[in-house]
Amino acid sequence: MASAAVRILALSGSLRSRSINSALLRATARLAPDGVRVEVEPDLGRLPLFNPDAADRPPATVAAFHGRIALADALIIASPEYAHGVTGTIKNALDWLVSFEPFAYKPVAVLNASPRAHHADDALRETLRTMAATIVEPASIALPLLGAHLDEDGMVAAPWVAAPLRAALGALSLAVARHRGTPSASFPIG
Amino acid sequence: MASAAVRILALSGSLRSRSINSALLRATARLAPDGVRVEVEPDLGRLPLFNPDAADRPPATVAAFHGRIALADALIIASPEYAHGVTGTIKNALDWLVSFEPFAYKPVAVLNASPRAHHADDALRETLRTMAATIVEPASIALPLLGAHLDEDGMVAAPWVAAPLRAALGALSLAVARHRGTPSASFPIG
Repeated sequence: MASAAVRILALSGSLRSRSINSALLRATARLAPDGVRVEVEPDLGRLPLFNPDAADRPPATVAAFHGRIALADALIIASPEYAHGVTGTIKNALDWLVSFEPFAYKPVAVLNASPRAHHADDALRETLRTMAATIVEPASIALPLLGAHLDEDGMVAAPWVAAPLRAALGALSLAVARHRGTPSASFPIG
Repeated sequence: MASAAVRILALSGSLRSRSINSALLRATARLAPDGVRVEVEPDLGRLPLFNPDAADRPPATVAAFHGRIALADALIIASPEYAHGVTGTIKNALDWLVSFEPFAYKPVAVLNASPRAHHADDALRETLRTMAATIVEPASIALPLLGAHLDEDGMVAAPWVAAPLRAALGALSLAVARHRGTPSASFPIG
């Protein structure tokens, strides 16, 4: 029995060209098995700063981002910690999604590339829960990549990185399948 | 004995035109006594999203913001809570200040216009402490303005708002005077 492909949108909270988090998401995309497609969101750095006055008629970059969110079956977020907080970039992206209905109940994996940092991870999860995201814990893994000196190729090649990423993708795909099978996911007001 | 004027830069974490936090800061500016000048930062909404690659050679809007920060004797921050987190706008502004030396040890007042919300206030303070700001507690006041239906004029006219704001400005000015009198403020590595 063929099932529809799982479409995952990956959001990096860093705009640095050599960002570990962005490399981690690109590696994840390359490790996706048949039937799972991971796209790294290209425009987080081009979103304007959130303005509630524009929420009803968002600018074009935001509308395109909304479109990709709506089409995604699940999200993967990887974001660094800046000064014991979330990055402005990832929070700004989420601010544009607070009032965007298709985001609610979406399965989300939260990756943490620097497990000794917990403030941003905690804050990100608190915000995601408040936005009614479904955080998929078996897919939300911590990998001590800070200081490991691995680029995207190195992450794909290193079993201690690639194996848990494959497992996380499996867990997230399973959550998507369950989500699709739940009528309340489409009609949350039951 | 005449003392130099106290220059305070006020940062609002909301870009909404009818933002309570922005109105609060404009009201604060109008309530400033002789010798204290409060300017509301005009460009937070025009800052690009923080990119560490650009930190050494920041874009023009960031350089101008840095200039106003450097010239300010103290800061006042008022920012709403979005989805149990700081706003992307205020965190993005702070991200541009993390590696900006003149920010360190600056006296900062954190206003909270919605005291029942504590996640964003806690996270903002944690970040400010991590950035070595000097949070001035007697100037960091909570005012239950959410639902009070006061605009800027109403805040200036309401004694329960104006009186604590004047006291906060006094406390912040005192902190500036102390800061100026402390050699270690200029030479923190003692």
